Amino acid sequence: MPGSSMGQAFRVTTFGESHGGGLGVVIDGCPPGVVLDVSAIQAALHRRRPGQSKWTTSRQEPDEVRCLSGMFEGETLGTPLCFVVDNKDADPEAYRAWKEVYRPSHGDYTYEAKYGRRAWAGGGRASARETVARVIAGDVARQVLTTLGSVDVVAWVDRLHEVVARVDVETVSLEAVEASELRCPDEAASAQMVEAVSAAMEARDTVGGVISCVLRGVPAGLGEPVFDKLDASLAAAMMSIPATKGFEVGSGFGGTRMKGSEHNDRFVELSEQRAVTQTNRSGGIQAGISNGMPIVFSVAFKPVSTLPVAQATVNRSGESTTVDPKGRHDPCVLPRAVPIVEAMANIVLLDHWLRWRGQVGSN
Amino acid sequence: MPGSSMGQAFRVTTFGESHGGGLGVVIDGCPPGVVLDVSAIQAALHRRRPGQSKWTTSRQEPDEVRCLSGMFEGETLGTPLCFVVDNKDADPEAYRAWKEVYRPSHGDYTYEAKYGRRAWAGGGRASARETVARVIAGDVARQVLTTLGSVDVVAWVDRLHEVVARVDVETVSLEAVEASELRCPDEAASAQMVEAVSAAMEARDTVGGVISCVLRGVPAGLGEPVFDKLDASLAAAMMSIPATKGFEVGSGFGGTRMKGSEHNDRFVELSEQRAVTQTNRSGGIQAGISNGMPIVFSVAFKPVSTLPVAQATVNRSGESTTVDPKGRHDPCVLPRAVPIVEAMANIVLLDHWLRWRGQVGSN
Amino acid sequence: MPGSSMGQAFRVTTFGESHGGGLGVVIDGCPPGVVLDVSAIQAALHRRRPGQSKWTTSRQEPDEVRCLSGMFEGETLGTPLCFVVDNKDADPEAYRAWKEVYRPSHGDYTYEAKYGRRAWAGGGRASARETVARVIAGDVARQVLTTLGSVDVVAWVDRLHEVVARVDVETVSLEAVEASELRCPDEAASAQMVEAVSAAMEARDTVGGVISCVLRGVPAGLGEPVFDKLDASLAAAMMSIPATKGFEVGSGFGGTRMKGSEHNDRFVELSEQRAVTQTNRSGGIQAGISNGMPIVFSVAFKPVSTLPVAQATVNRSGESTTVDPKGRHDPCVLPRAVPIVEAMANIVLLDHWLRWRGQVGSN
Amino acid sequence: MPGSSMGQAFRVTTFGESHGGGLGVVIDGCPPGVVLDVSAIQAALHRRRPGQSKWTTSRQEPDEVRCLSGMFEGETLGTPLCFVVDNKDADPEAYRAWKEVYRPSHGDYTYEAKYGRRAWAGGGRASARETVARVIAGDVARQVLTTLGSVDVVAWVDRLHEVVARVDVETVSLEAVEASELRCPDEAASAQMVEAVSAAMEARDTVGGVISCVLRGVPAGLGEPVFDKLDASLAAAMMSIPATKGFEVGSGFGGTRMKGSEHNDRFVELSEQRAVTQTNRSGGIQAGISNGMPIVFSVAFKPVSTLPVAQATVNRSGESTTVDPKGRHDPCVLPRAVPIVEAMANIVLLDHWLRWRGQVGSN
Repeated sequence: MPGSSMGQAFRVTTFGESHGGGLGVVIDGCPPGVVLDVSAIQAALHRRRPGQSKWTTSRQEPDEVRCLSGMFEGETLGTPLCFVVDNKDADPEAYRAWKEVYRPSHGDYTYEAKYGRRAWAGGGRASARETVARVIAGDVARQVLTTLGSVDVVAWVDRLHEVVARVDVETVSLEAVEASELRCPDEAASAQMVEAVSAAMEARDTVGGVISCVLRGVPAGLGEPVFDKLDASLAAAMMSIPATKGFEVGSGFGGTRMKGSEHNDRFVELSEQRAVTQTNRSGGIQAGISNGMPIVFSVAFKPVSTLPVAQATVNRSGESTTVDPKGRHDPCVLPRAVPIVEAMANIVLLDHWLRWRGQVGSN
Repeated sequence: MPGSSMGQAFRVTTFGESHGGGLGVVIDGCPPGVVLDVSAIQAALHRRRPGQSKWTTSRQEPDEVRCLSGMFEGETLGTPLCFVVDNKDADPEAYRAWKEVYRPSHGDYTYEAKYGRRAWAGGGRASARETVARVIAGDVARQVLTTLGSVDVVAWVDRLHEVVARVDVETVSLEAVEASELRCPDEAASAQMVEAVSAAMEARDTVGGVISCVLRGVPAGLGEPVFDKLDASLAAAMMSIPATKGFEVGSGFGGTRMKGSEHNDRFVELSEQRAVTQTNRSGGIQAGISNGMPIVFSVAFKPVSTLPVAQATVNRSGESTTVDPKGRHDPCVLPRAVPIVEAMANIVLLDHWLRWRGQVGSN
Repeated sequence: MPGSSMGQAFRVTTFGESHGGGLGVVIDGCPPGVVLDVSAIQAALHRRRPGQSKWTTSRQEPDEVRCLSGMFEGETLGTPLCFVVDNKDADPEAYRAWKEVYRPSHGDYTYEAKYGRRAWAGGGRASARETVARVIAGDVARQVLTTLGSVDVVAWVDRLHEVVARVDVETVSLEAVEASELRCPDEAASAQMVEAVSAAMEARDTVGGVISCVLRGVPAGLGEPVFDKLDASLAAAMMSIPATKGFEVGSGFGGTRMKGSEHNDRFVELSEQRAVTQTNRSGGIQAGISNGMPIVFSVAFKPVSTLPVAQATVNRSGESTTVDPKGRHDPCVLPRAVPIVEAMANIVLLDHWLRWRGQVGSN
Repeated sequence: MPGSSMGQAFRVTTFGESHGGGLGVVIDGCPPGVVLDVSAIQAALHRRRPGQSKWTTSRQEPDEVRCLSGMFEGETLGTPLCFVVDNKDADPEAYRAWKEVYRPSHGDYTYEAKYGRRAWAGGGRASARETVARVIAGDVARQVLTTLGSVDVVAWVDRLHEVVARVDVETVSLEAVEASELRCPDEAASAQMVEAVSAAMEARDTVGGVISCVLRGVPAGLGEPVFDKLDASLAAAMMSIPATKGFEVGSGFGGTRMKGSEHNDRFVELSEQRAVTQTNRSGGIQAGISNGMPIVFSVAFKPVSTLPVAQATVNRSGESTTVDPKGRHDPCVLPRAVPIVEAMANIVLLDHWLRWRGQVGSN
C-alpha cells in the first residue's frame, strides 16, 4: 500500500504539493455526531503558518481551510471528511532554477531516484507545507478526543541548539507554550533561544533542537501488541514529520545509562483505569500499552537544510554546481513544528482509542 | 486493524505466548521461486536463543523451526509461509505466583488494563520470546533480499551502559560482531562491556545500552512519502521490539546540536542508482527515501526490568506486595537483541522494496 | 478500517455528499510518469452525467473535474492524485421535506441507524452522485493500464427489464455501446429497451436489468489467493455500486445447471502469457486468477427506488406517512451505470496488476 | 497487500496447502474474554470434512484442530489465536502424474502463470482443503457473536442441478438442514437431490447448484459506505470460496425483472434497532447497511471440475494429453460447502460489528 495514509480506525489520507493546487486531507472513520469547530481548525493552522515572526519564511499563505464533505448541520456524519487549503501564493516558475539541481539534504535527489521525476517547484510533496494537512487532521482528532475523555496534549521546544529548557511535564500548559515566541515555556531558556536563533540568522546559518510532548489523561489500555505498540505508532508518526532524526519515549536514550534497579517504575497505587507509579521512566507506556501515567516523548529536529547562502552541490547530470535558495527561509523550524507534533500525537491517540473500543467494547 | 501484523507487501503476522503451545509467523506476499534455506533460519534462531552464555536466562528451548506451508520442493510458492516453533520448556504453573501481582515496568498491568485479563504465565504475548517469530521472518526477508540485490545488514552493541564502542559503519561485519561474546565488534570495548555486565550481575542488577545497525547496498528510492517514510517504518519496527526506548537515524539527537552548515550532506557524485555524499548525517535516508548511502540507525534498550531480587510492587487489588522472579534471567538483553534488530531491518527493507517495485515497476 | 477506500496498491479513497461542497477522490499509489489526459477523465464523467437524455434526472451539474495534486507537467508524480468536482446545483433546502421521513428501499433509515444521523439533503453519501469519484478514478486506472498492456474494458446493458440483448463478448466495442441511447450494442434489443423504458415512464414506474462487462487482453496471473481472488475483488467492487443486487462471472448462476462434463473449459493451446480454452465458462478466471481469456461478468441492478409517485412509508417516529420525490428522476439507471461498471473494473484490474508486479516482479 | 487475509477488525489470515504440513489460521483482533469451545470448532470441521457420505472424496483426514495461541484458561486473550490442522493423509507423490499437466477449470495453469510454479500435489493452495481454515475462523466468529447479540446464521442447499427447494427463510433451522444428507431442509427436494447426485455419479459426471443463507437477528447499522458495504463484503467473501460463480442478495437477478413499484420494500414499523418492512427484496441490506430484517443471499457453485473420467487437456509444454483423477471425488460439492458459506458469513458479520463498534461506540 502507498504511504500517504496513516491510522487504521481513524484513517487520515493527505494530498498536495507545495506549489500545486492545494493541500488537503480526507479523514475516514471519524465518529459521527461530533460538533466540529472549523474555526478551531483554522486557529490550529495559524499556529503552523509561516509569517508569524521575523524568523519565519516570507511566503504569504492565508491557509484558509474549507470543508468539502463529512459535515452536516455542524456535526460529523461518520462519512469521510475532506478539508482543502488552496495554495494562493504558489509560484512554480520562481523555482525553475531548482529544476536541474539537487539541494543538499533535501528530497530532490531521492524523489527523483524513486519516481524518475519530481515536482521541482518548491519541494513538492516533500515540502513542510504538506504538514498543513496533518494539522487539520490533528485538530479534528483533538476535538473528537474531547468527546471521549479528558485528554490534554501539549508540546514545546525543549532544547534549541544548545539551550535546554526545564519544563514540568505534569503542569506545562498550552498557554505557557504559546506565551513564548519560540514556543518554549521556560521563560529564561526561551530568551536564550531567541539569542541563539538570532545569532544563527546573523551567521546566515540554521539550528535544530528537540521538541518534547506530553499526553495527560490517557486511559490505561491503549496500544496494540506487538507491532502497533503505542510508542511504535508514535515513533512512526513523529519520524514521518519532515526534518526529524530521532524519537525517544520516557527515559529514552538517557535511561539506557541507568541500572535496572534505578530504572524500574514502582507501582504506587491503582486508581480507576490508570496506574500511579513513583517514577515514570516508562513514559506512560509499558509493553506498548498506556498505563495511565503521562505519556512523554521527545523528537529530534535537524537544523534546517535550506541555508540562506549558496551551497555546493551537483546537478541532475552529476556535475558540480551551487544552489541558492529563493526568498527568506526559517533559520529554525522548531516553533512551527510544535503544533505538528501535537497534531500527530492526537491522530495516533484517537486511532488507538477507536481500535481499542472496537475490539474490547469499552468507551 | 489489530497489531500483530507488519509490512504491506511482505506481510508478517506473528502469534504465540511465551508459555502457550508455541510461537509462529505467517508471511504473506513473499516472492515465489526463492530457494529458502531453512537451516539458515534455524541458525538465526540460535543467535537469538537464550542459554548461549553464562549471562542469559536458563530456559532451555531447542527452538526448532518447522515450515507448515508456502514451500514446495525447496522453493517459496508465493502463497503464505507459516513457520512454527513449539514451546518445549513451557511451564505455566511455575508462574502461578505472578498471577495476582504486577511486575514493575512489565506489561502485566497494561495488558490487563487493555484486555481485562492476561496470560500470567511468563509474560504471555509481551514476553521477549515473541521475538522468535520476528527472527524467522527476518531471515526469510534476508534470503529474499539476496535475490534482489547485494544488501548487507549488520547490527551490533554500540554502547552497553557507559561503555561506548567505536565501530566503522562502512566495514563492520557480521563476523566481527559474532566474534564478540556480547556482539560488540570493538574488541577493547567488548572486554569492558563484559566487565560491566559481570559487575551488574554481581550486584544483582541489570544494564541497558544502544544497538546500532547499518544497511549497506540499499538502492536509492525506497520509502513511501509521507507517512511510511523509510525511517518512520524503521522507527516503528524498532520501537516495537520489547525494552526499546528510543530510535535515531543518521546524526540523530546529537545532530541537533550542529548548525545547518555543518549538518548538510554535500553531494559528491551520483553513480548508478545511488548518490555519494561527503558526510552521511542523513543516515542514508533523505525525505524518507533511501539515497544509496549506508542506512545507519540506533536503538535504545532500557536495562532489563526483571531483576534477580525481590521488588516492591502492588497486586491486582492495589495492595503492596513484592515480586521475585523465577530462575535465572539476563542481566543484559542487548546481545540477544542484535539479531532481532537485524531481523526487523530486513523485514522493513524488503517490504519497501516490493512496494516500490509494485508502483514503479523497476526491479 | 472505514470503508471509503478500495484497492491495495492503487488505493482509491472517495469523499463527498450529493448536496455538500463537492465530490472527490484521492488516488495513492499511482505509477509515476503516466501522461494523464484530464479531458479524457472529463469525457468519462460526461458519460455518467445526468441530463443526457429525456430519461435522466433533471439535475444540472457541469461536473467539471479539477486536479488538486499529484500531477506535474502533465505527468503523474507517483504521489497522491486528488480530483474534485464541485457541487454546483446543490440545493439542500429543497429536500427539507425528506428530513423526517425514510424513503423506501433507500439508505435513509440505515444510515441513521448506523450513525445516529444522516445528510438528509438528497441522499447524502448514499446518493448515486458519489459515483462521480469512481468514474474519475476509473479513468485514471484505464489510462495507466494503457501503459502496461493492451487491455480493453467494455460494459453494456445486457438486459433491461425483460428485454435481452445478444452481444458477442469477443467483439463488442465501446463505439457500438455508445451508439445506443441506452448503451445496448444490440440494435434490435436497444429499440425494444427504449420502448420498455418509455412504457415504465408513462406508467410512472421504474425498471432495472443487467449490465455485462468484458475485459479483453488481461494477462494470465492476476488475482490474489485466497480471499482477494480476482472475481472476489470484482464482486465486491460491483456490489458496492448503488442499486446492485447480484454478480456473476463466466457461466454464473446459469452454469450451475450444467454437468461438470459440459462445464469444464478444455485447454486448446497455450500462447504467451495466456491460455486458450475451447469454452469460457470460467469467465477468464480460474481459482481466482486470470487465465488470459476474456474476463466476463454481469451485474444485476434493481429498478430505481425513487418513483415519480407518492409512496407510503414511515417517518422517524415510526408513524405512517407518504413520500414524494422532488423533480424528475431516472426511470432506469442502467445506461448511466455502464461507465461506472467499467470504472470499477479498471480500478480492480490495475490494483491487481500492481500487486502482482510487486510480488512477482514481472511487468 | 497479499490476499490470504480478510476482515479489518476481526482479521483472519489463513495458510496451508492440501498436501503440505497442514492448514491453519491466525485470527487477530478477537475480543478478549470470550469462552471458546474448541469442541464446537471441531464439530464445525466435521461438518465440512470429506468422508461423511458415499458421495464425498475418500481422503481420510481426522482434521483435529489444535490451538497454538491466543487462549488462556479457556478464554480468548485478545491476542492472536492460531489454530492448526495437520495434514495426516498427505501423499504428494500420488500426484506426481499431475505435475506436468493442467487439469481443466482448475487453478493449475493460473497459479503457474502467476507464480511461475505451483504445488502440484493435489491442488496446493487452490484445493478446497484450504477451507478448513475458514471453518475454524467462522466458528470462532460465531461464538464471539453469541456474546454480542442473538444472531442466527443458517445456510442450505437451495438448488441442486435442476432440483429447487422451497425454504422459509424466517424459520429454516440448522437442525432441519443437518437432518438432510445433502443439507437441503426441504425433504421432498432433498430426496430428489439424492437422485440427481446418484444419477450424476452413475454417469461419472458432476453437478452444481445454489446455496442460500440467512442471517437473522443482525441489528440495523452494520456495513461501511461506500466500498465495504455489507453486501459487497459478503459478495467478496462468498466469491472467494472455491467453485463459486455468482452471488445475489435479496431479490437478486430475479428482482431486476420487477418494476420499482413492486420491488420497493414498504416500511411497516420501526422497532428498536431494526426496521420491519412488508417485503424483503432488499435482503436485509439497504445502501450497504443492515436494516434489521433477515439478511438473505445466495451463492452459485459450479459442477465439480474433477471428473471421474479421463479428460483431454494440455501439458506444461502446451501439448495435448489427458488427465485422470486419483481416487474418489465428490460428484457434488454443495453439501460440504454449506458450513463454509456459514463460516464466511459469520466472519464478515463479526468484522463489521467490531468496525461499527469502534467508530460509533455502541455495543
